[in-house]
Amino acid sequence: MKKLFLLLLIITSNFIFPQNKLFTVEDVIYGTSRRAQPFRQINWLPNSDNYAWIEGTGENQLLLSSKVNSSKIDTLTTIKKINAKLKSIDKPLTNLNYNWTSQSELTFWNNNIFYTYNLKSESLSKTNSVNENATERFVAPNNKFIAYTIDNNLLYSKEDGKELQITFDKDTNVVNGQSVHRNEFGINHGIFWSPNSNYIAFYRMDQSMVTDYPLVDISTTPAKLKNIKYPMAGQTSHQVKIGIYDINKGTTTWLKTGEPLDQYLTCLTWQPDEKYFYVAHLNKDQNHLQLKKYDVSTGELVKILFEEKNDKYVEPENELIFLPNNNEKFLWQSQRDGFNHIYLYDTNGNLIKQITKGNWVVTQFNGFDETGKNIFITSTKESPIERHFYRVNLTTGEIFKLTNEVGTHTVIKNSNCKFFIDSYSNVTTPRIINIINSKGEIVKNILTSENPYKEYKMPQTKLFSIKNDEGIELYCRMILPTDFDSTKKYPVIFYVYGGPHAQEVNNIFGMGRYFTWFYLMAQKGFIVFTLDNRGSSNRGLEFEQATFRRLGTIEIKDQMTGVNYLKKLKFVDENRFGVYGWSYGGFMTTSLMLRTNNTFKVGACGGAVIDWKYYEIMYGERYMDTPQSNPDGYNESCLLNYVQNLNGKLLLVHGTSDPTVVWQHTLAFVKKAQELNKPLDYFPYVGHGHGVVGKDAIHLYNKITNYFLDNL
Amino acid sequence: MKKLFLLLLIITSNFIFPQNKLFTVEDVIYGTSRRAQPFRQINWLPNSDNYAWIEGTGENQLLLSSKVNSSKIDTLTTIKKINAKLKSIDKPLTNLNYNWTSQSELTFWNNNIFYTYNLKSESLSKTNSVNENATERFVAPNNKFIAYTIDNNLLYSKEDGKELQITFDKDTNVVNGQSVHRNEFGINHGIFWSPNSNYIAFYRMDQSMVTDYPLVDISTTPAKLKNIKYPMAGQTSHQVKIGIYDINKGTTTWLKTGEPLDQYLTCLTWQPDEKYFYVAHLNKDQNHLQLKKYDVSTGELVKILFEEKNDKYVEPENELIFLPNNNEKFLWQSQRDGFNHIYLYDTNGNLIKQITKGNWVVTQFNGFDETGKNIFITSTKESPIERHFYRVNLTTGEIFKLTNEVGTHTVIKNSNCKFFIDSYSNVTTPRIINIINSKGEIVKNILTSENPYKEYKMPQTKLFSIKNDEGIELYCRMILPTDFDSTKKYPVIFYVYGGPHAQEVNNIFGMGRYFTWFYLMAQKGFIVFTLDNRGSSNRGLEFEQATFRRLGTIEIKDQMTGVNYLKKLKFVDENRFGVYGWSYGGFMTTSLMLRTNNTFKVGACGGAVIDWKYYEIMYGERYMDTPQSNPDGYNESCLLNYVQNLNGKLLLVHGTSDPTVVWQHTLAFVKKAQELNKPLDYFPYVGHGHGVVGKDAIHLYNKITNYFLDNL
Repeated sequence: MKKLFLLLLIITSNFIFPQNKLFTVEDVIYGTSRRAQPFRQINWLPNSDNYAWIEGTGENQLLLSSKVNSSKIDTLTTIKKINAKLKSIDKPLTNLNYNWTSQSELTFWNNNIFYTYNLKSESLSKTNSVNENATERFVAPNNKFIAYTIDNNLLYSKEDGKELQITFDKDTNVVNGQSVHRNEFGINHGIFWSPNSNYIAFYRMDQSMVTDYPLVDISTTPAKLKNIKYPMAGQTSHQVKIGIYDINKGTTTWLKTGEPLDQYLTCLTWQPDEKYFYVAHLNKDQNHLQLKKYDVSTGELVKILFEEKNDKYVEPENELIFLPNNNEKFLWQSQRDGFNHIYLYDTNGNLIKQITKGNWVVTQFNGFDETGKNIFITSTKESPIERHFYRVNLTTGEIFKLTNEVGTHTVIKNSNCKFFIDSYSNVTTPRIINIINSKGEIVKNILTSENPYKEYKMPQTKLFSIKNDEGIELYCRMILPTDFDSTKKYPVIFYVYGGPHAQEVNNIFGMGRYFTWFYLMAQKGFIVFTLDNRGSSNRGLEFEQATFRRLGTIEIKDQMTGVNYLKKLKFVDENRFGVYGWSYGGFMTTSLMLRTNNTFKVGACGGAVIDWKYYEIMYGERYMDTPQSNPDGYNESCLLNYVQNLNGKLLLVHGTSDPTVVWQHTLAFVKKAQELNKPLDYFPYVGHGHGVVGKDAIHLYNKITNYFLDNL
Repeated sequence: MKKLFLLLLIITSNFIFPQNKLFTVEDVIYGTSRRAQPFRQINWLPNSDNYAWIEGTGENQLLLSSKVNSSKIDTLTTIKKINAKLKSIDKPLTNLNYNWTSQSELTFWNNNIFYTYNLKSESLSKTNSVNENATERFVAPNNKFIAYTIDNNLLYSKEDGKELQITFDKDTNVVNGQSVHRNEFGINHGIFWSPNSNYIAFYRMDQSMVTDYPLVDISTTPAKLKNIKYPMAGQTSHQVKIGIYDINKGTTTWLKTGEPLDQYLTCLTWQPDEKYFYVAHLNKDQNHLQLKKYDVSTGELVKILFEEKNDKYVEPENELIFLPNNNEKFLWQSQRDGFNHIYLYDTNGNLIKQITKGNWVVTQFNGFDETGKNIFITSTKESPIERHFYRVNLTTGEIFKLTNEVGTHTVIKNSNCKFFIDSYSNVTTPRIINIINSKGEIVKNILTSENPYKEYKMPQTKLFSIKNDEGIELYCRMILPTDFDSTKKYPVIFYVYGGPHAQEVNNIFGMGRYFTWFYLMAQKGFIVFTLDNRGSSNRGLEFEQATFRRLGTIEIKDQMTGVNYLKKLKFVDENRFGVYGWSYGGFMTTSLMLRTNNTFKVGACGGAVIDWKYYEIMYGERYMDTPQSNPDGYNESCLLNYVQNLNGKLLLVHGTSDPTVVWQHTLAFVKKAQELNKPLDYFPYVGHGHGVVGKDAIHLYNKITNYFLDNL
């Protein structure tokens, strides 16, 4: 045995050179480890200092719990136990995605059936079920009723499987109960249960006036048309209404939201007593918001609570938060003072006070404490590239930071706000989970992750900021090549996104597809550089709105600040700049290739916006207005107008069924390159949407990687 | 002046190095000379030994004539003269495309007006006109009436501009008066005037049962669907009928062509006296032809004249040719003895005799002599790669060759068959036009073209044949690199087509896009090699049908005969074989890349067939039967099944609106390559059809050229 063991050791050391392993494209796509993450779905039990989480994989998944002040771990249940109960009635569960209803009871979906499981009695009961074709399933607050959609109509089920239809639209251009406005304005669903489960509010969207965009599915013989409704900037938009279905009466009342019919309706919120319903109306031009209060019983407008205007745009994204046990006061998030902050209002529309203030933004509202006198928020107060957790006193505005370690924190409070699960990482620290108390002191360490890349040859990641010529601070990340030697010269790949609603430079431990690819390229001798230009997120409204009506121009200026910074570094080869990005980052990649006097030698990008007139109304008109009202801006940003500048190597790839940045963008670019006889590389990812998913991503990342290796 | 002249000479010699000029991609696309070709539209005047032709460009175009026995050239008219007459009534002519009606009268179209011009009186008259939206315009034999289509309906005009509608189909799936059966079976139009202009026979095609193939036009905002009817192999075909419209009665009689409705109807022929109409019926399986005679007045079937069967396929492509002034005897072309020959029949269906015979094919019927006792044909009798002109005696079968020079001849006889305009070229001789007499003796040389490439560094072109391992002779063309040195080793680019209905190796003087590109590549140091494999044209039925039900396999075998031949040549670098082709040649290129154990290092192709199940019924099922009846054959030929073999560099390009080989072919290949993580290069030619036309072809040929330069 001894000899064999020795042999094994030798073989092993042949495969695992500690800290010398190199990343492969397969690692980029599938990750470097197939182990299940520990502490999945970690959360507090209701009204308790106990927390619970899932561990294990497949049939061996366990629901575990522990107390704050104990190292003991209890097994609450196992997937095997639950599957034993399910055996006679349903297919087995593959994963347990549960919600607590009490300390001893949880609910979960399995296929189309909604179950309640009692941990104490170990009893499973079928609470309700829905049609097998149901999508958009929403369980009512009473944990019994279920609202859902089938195709374009809304239905609900009060008791097991009894299907009750709410809408009856035969025209599939009319869609009920689904997300509207293409998921802009913070909207991601279309069904809104009232707090006491007596009503269902829902969106109804009429798309009959919106043009079709033809997608083609080549997987059939012959290829088949799959039209999508795609309202392009400056063209006719869809029309949205809000219905309120009364469960007890079986009737629907339509809110009298009035004209113009192409307005945007968002921030849908129930008053806790179910008497009134609140809707933020945003005009088509997106620069004038009115928060309106409606009478639930009649659908009549009761009052316009307040208005917000901005000469560029207003962007409401968060629903009203009523104070606990209070039908008269609510919190409202707004960027009206230039940064996203919290305001306290009464339901007559009186501003009681601004709760948070400063040159930083609230990134999340995290709830109230037991007294209702304090709220919890996540914000950028410490640093734009960090996230910390704060308690804010609603009366005094006093703000207390509970998280101490540098980095990006995600915090979950328990019911009495004495304990908090604080999960964080930073550029050098993989995930740590602690329990902290209300003073921010660490009470217990739950997890200190091993470095998942400990066997790999890892590059150094640096976070820093530089100033553009207007003195504005721009955050950067630079990943240095492995075996970095400051006396050598290295090529640089810019990874860009650059658009609104995104921040690429964060103080986190870099993992996942993009970071693994950055590390892979660093191992191949590239510097990978990223800079968050103006227009990107979490830096306040002025920073974001700098790009208004001329997307691309200001972003390029800021990226060139990065270029100039890099050119001064002795270890940078200024003749070998490359750039890679996707979506808005594809727009940026192509813009940088064409509009910087050949600064960049090689570019590769996917799903790139080429001409904003091909993009949709909601997002597009917010930042660009319409092609009719802003012809110069559309012209300046349109990359078809710069194809003649293409001198470097540029590879465009695009998912052939992309419903977000439609294929027309890059095909139009190809057409122009053909006409101007400009060499261009192109690759269609057939059947893919706005991203390349599944194993085909291996092909994509090989293509991108080789493109830089061969050309930069 | 003297000094200036000298200076000009020096500049000129700086630009033109005699025999040293190199071809550019622009030369490939636009040609090396912008000079108008001499002797355009050369033809005999009616009943005359005078011939006429067009010379000059633009406004300076002249209609000239000369006599056989004179060197004098007369100007018959000029475009300026005609335009002077047109001035008050129509836009000026840009080109004169005319037809003789007598020695002093010609007709031509200008826009939608049909004119007669008298050369003697210099008078212009408007004979008739049609709707501006008219397409498919056919002038009746009386040179007065005009039949035409607007959209899907047939109309005609008896006198100036008076529109009379013949069909009234509102359903655009029903198409009247246009070509049917996707231009297979020798069909290229859908309107057939009767000899005395009393009737219009026409095709009516119902496509309502044929699936749509979705093409997308990205030139609009948003992109627009442009469906085409595309019946894929094994799916439902369209249904064709034949109508006969009686001009005098104003009624349409439908020929009772019967069932099955998806049969093919071709070889439509009027009996000279207009009493009977002949149609070749071909069954859907294409292996059983019946020649049927119909009564024009009733549409009733009179008689099945004869049948032709073949265990693979029968391919009727030529209408009946009635003997002059004879309603009882006609000539029929058939491959029934293995080679295309001419047969004499009577209208009762009796075979009188086979007129031509031998292991060669009649490629064209060129008419009768004055007596009606002799016919003229063009054939491969001399050599499969040459075309000569013959007189054949209908009674004795005696055959007399009129053309003597080696090469490819095109001959036009005069009315009394005493003189012939013989235009020919061969591999070393640019175009020569002679007048020859009935003994084949040259009477007059009209044109001996200068070598159009005399300033260029030209490669040597060799034509030869090799034998495959079954002893079958295969014709080859090899273009050697310029500055050829037999002690060096050169890479080879195979240019392939390889499919039916084509012959690439011909004894002609190579000009045009493909040849110029071959010369360009030869100048860059490549051997350009082409071999006509089995399946290709003009070698007889057995040679062509060798590929039946398994397209690709036999073709590859023959191309490998070429590979093995080349490998034995000392000056060939056997590790550097490339291949280029388009359409069927794209199928061949990809097949050769995937199915020859990595013989080819680099391939590039356009509009490639990838899977015959995506190809249309008429052509596809002739050679492959249906996917249902020949699953093994479809499987064997389907290139999706060989993607895993791809180890070389392969570039696929495709017109995004290709209506012939639909885009689905290569997109399906891309999808498979993605799934198998096989590196592949791709480029879509946006908005283009089955070929890349106009100036975008510059981009294409740069791409293709660089692909071989960079990778081979």
